[in-house]
Amino acid sequence: MPVFFAAATEHAGVLLSLFLMIFAAKLMAEIFERLRQPAVVGEILAGVIIGPSLLGWVSPSEFTTIIAEIGVIFLLFTVGLETKPESILRVGKRAFLVGTLGVILPFIAGYFIAIWWEGVFVEAMFVGAALVATSVGITARVLGSLGLLDKETSKIILGAAVIDDILGLIILSTVSSLSTGGVDYFGLAKTAGLAILFTVVVGTAGARSMKLLAPRVDALRMHRPFFNIGLILCLGLSIASMYVGVAAIIGAFLAGMALAEPTEENHTMHRMTSGVTEFLVPFFLVNIGMQLDLSVFRDSTVIGLALLITFFAVITKFIGCGLGAWGMTRREMGQIGVGMIPRGEVGIVVAQIGLSLGVISKPFFASVLFMAVATTLIAPPLIKLFFSEDKDNDGVDDVIVETDISDEFTRIG
Amino acid sequence: MPVFFAAATEHAGVLLSLFLMIFAAKLMAEIFERLRQPAVVGEILAGVIIGPSLLGWVSPSEFTTIIAEIGVIFLLFTVGLETKPESILRVGKRAFLVGTLGVILPFIAGYFIAIWWEGVFVEAMFVGAALVATSVGITARVLGSLGLLDKETSKIILGAAVIDDILGLIILSTVSSLSTGGVDYFGLAKTAGLAILFTVVVGTAGARSMKLLAPRVDALRMHRPFFNIGLILCLGLSIASMYVGVAAIIGAFLAGMALAEPTEENHTMHRMTSGVTEFLVPFFLVNIGMQLDLSVFRDSTVIGLALLITFFAVITKFIGCGLGAWGMTRREMGQIGVGMIPRGEVGIVVAQIGLSLGVISKPFFASVLFMAVATTLIAPPLIKLFFSEDKDNDGVDDVIVETDISDEFTRIG
Repeated sequence: MPVFFAAATEHAGVLLSLFLMIFAAKLMAEIFERLRQPAVVGEILAGVIIGPSLLGWVSPSEFTTIIAEIGVIFLLFTVGLETKPESILRVGKRAFLVGTLGVILPFIAGYFIAIWWEGVFVEAMFVGAALVATSVGITARVLGSLGLLDKETSKIILGAAVIDDILGLIILSTVSSLSTGGVDYFGLAKTAGLAILFTVVVGTAGARSMKLLAPRVDALRMHRPFFNIGLILCLGLSIASMYVGVAAIIGAFLAGMALAEPTEENHTMHRMTSGVTEFLVPFFLVNIGMQLDLSVFRDSTVIGLALLITFFAVITKFIGCGLGAWGMTRREMGQIGVGMIPRGEVGIVVAQIGLSLGVISKPFFASVLFMAVATTLIAPPLIKLFFSEDKDNDGVDDVIVETDISDEFTRIG
Repeated sequence: MPVFFAAATEHAGVLLSLFLMIFAAKLMAEIFERLRQPAVVGEILAGVIIGPSLLGWVSPSEFTTIIAEIGVIFLLFTVGLETKPESILRVGKRAFLVGTLGVILPFIAGYFIAIWWEGVFVEAMFVGAALVATSVGITARVLGSLGLLDKETSKIILGAAVIDDILGLIILSTVSSLSTGGVDYFGLAKTAGLAILFTVVVGTAGARSMKLLAPRVDALRMHRPFFNIGLILCLGLSIASMYVGVAAIIGAFLAGMALAEPTEENHTMHRMTSGVTEFLVPFFLVNIGMQLDLSVFRDSTVIGLALLITFFAVITKFIGCGLGAWGMTRREMGQIGVGMIPRGEVGIVVAQIGLSLGVISKPFFASVLFMAVATTLIAPPLIKLFFSEDKDNDGVDDVIVETDISDEFTRIG
């Protein structure tokens, strides 16, 4: 029957999954907006609901994971487009301190919780590593929708996320080599050096080169040259950063930053890019929610471990990053602290690596997974709360929510 | 080593394929624009070059095929957004005649070529069926980039493509059931009836409902309500049309048409949607090119068959559709004739079904595949040629190429 042929050849099943993901995401976003809660939380919960934990309509597959990955890549590219490199450099020292303290405290906490919970050395190191890496996508999404991406604390969070990712890479390299027998210090130094070199070189030279090349891009005969060159740069640097060892989103963020100035007045390019981002981000958020495995709660002792790890993941990141902003106002310290809480996809990836190496046991894996999703659900309301005084309280934020990022900047900046 | 972990977990290989596809597409688009040739041809050739036929950097995979499918879905959605239902209804009769004659002639030609070339009955029926279905995506892309989508002949082509697809479904159902033993006339009538009912009901009621619902959509609290409702409608109707048996792009086109009037003034929504389309369409075009299997030319007799089938595919569609437009000017008849030539992904799908049913032999499969890609390469220059007098010849079309569809409409309309 042709219906089945069509279904088979046109991959109706995969398209149906994508449809269900975006439909559930937008339905929950609408409900959460009406309840004056962050839409991000609604979209992650949509994943919990339609995912294997509850309804089981859609399961995380290789396809949903790749689409989710492209979604968060475009999210950070869009954020980069609104971020001039100087604004990050200006807060560089502080971002470094925030990133570093925000890595050390969660790592120590994770390590000792695991040791105390009968974990062995390598396992405890892995749990520590899984607590380290911030998933800046969630925070960027919330701050973007509130129109607060150009605040100084937002810049510090973005800069600290880059530091955080590089330190996370070094820690993950170390604990991985521990598990496969002995640390290769030379290899480790090479990994770290390459990651730092890549980030610094692309971060500084990228914007300067694009500024010089802008007239040439403008002279291209292809349709929409800046949009298309942006796509190529975004995907190209994302992949390059993966091969260097840092997260793809770091490359995407650097690509966006490189184009921030040349495309500043190019509203069409920004709007077309935001179209791609708006289309793909729901898949990123729903895919996080789908990872949640509520079956851990069948074992009551694992409940305790999951809640303990989540509690310390939140508190150590909050205190560590907050302390890194010492000297700023208390509210700003709090803003930075909550902004770094979400672990999301990064924590999940670390846990999966631990599982694939066979060094992390099921209860720890389940707990880290729970922590990764739970922190993404806890953070957005806290971010909204801590940043609430920075918005006008006359209802204008409702209007801002209806505009895209580029609008928000002309509105605020 | 974390590099490999990152590569494994973040699917660097798939992202690398996507990067290579978009990079090659845009490079070739730029070269072709400079040579004053249609960018579409350059992007399809990019697929031939990086695909298995030549460099072998990227092969068509399930992932590239799905992304390509989503690309052509969004392409037709964007075209639908610029097409008011009345403008199609107004040309309905003519479109019906164009679609019908454009199906009969190629089918007969395909059947007799195959019989003459020692094909058996069912095989010949399949070759005929593969020559039937027009891939309107290619034509829509060329006409869109020339800013000619709102011409009467463009509307006739779009309407005829819908008819063409429904007739193609009926033919494919018939030949498929022949190959699996006897035609089930009741099932066939059901399939045909359902497809026609779906198209007519969605085509007529869709726009009316969306017009009524527009104020409610506008009142939604979610970010960018029209864009997001558009995404949901586009994916939802694409999937629905697949399950009904017609191509996903028909559903996407109907979804776009339903939203054409309510979003007429919503330039942000149009631009965001065009961002998604511009991002995804290169994957559709490159994926077509990657299907080309140049190894058929190792067998000189197959060369003859491939060229023969291609020649008749072009000529019968041109004459059939052109005759359907009898009564219009010769140039308009020619415009409609060339607009219906591309077979692209539809011809490939039919050939693949024939192969999977084991009724089509390798030489015919290779020749149909060649014909499908070749017609997409032949048509764009012909379309450009036949429509050339409809543009100002003062170089303004260069400017139009740099604008997106919504711009073109304010410019022309």
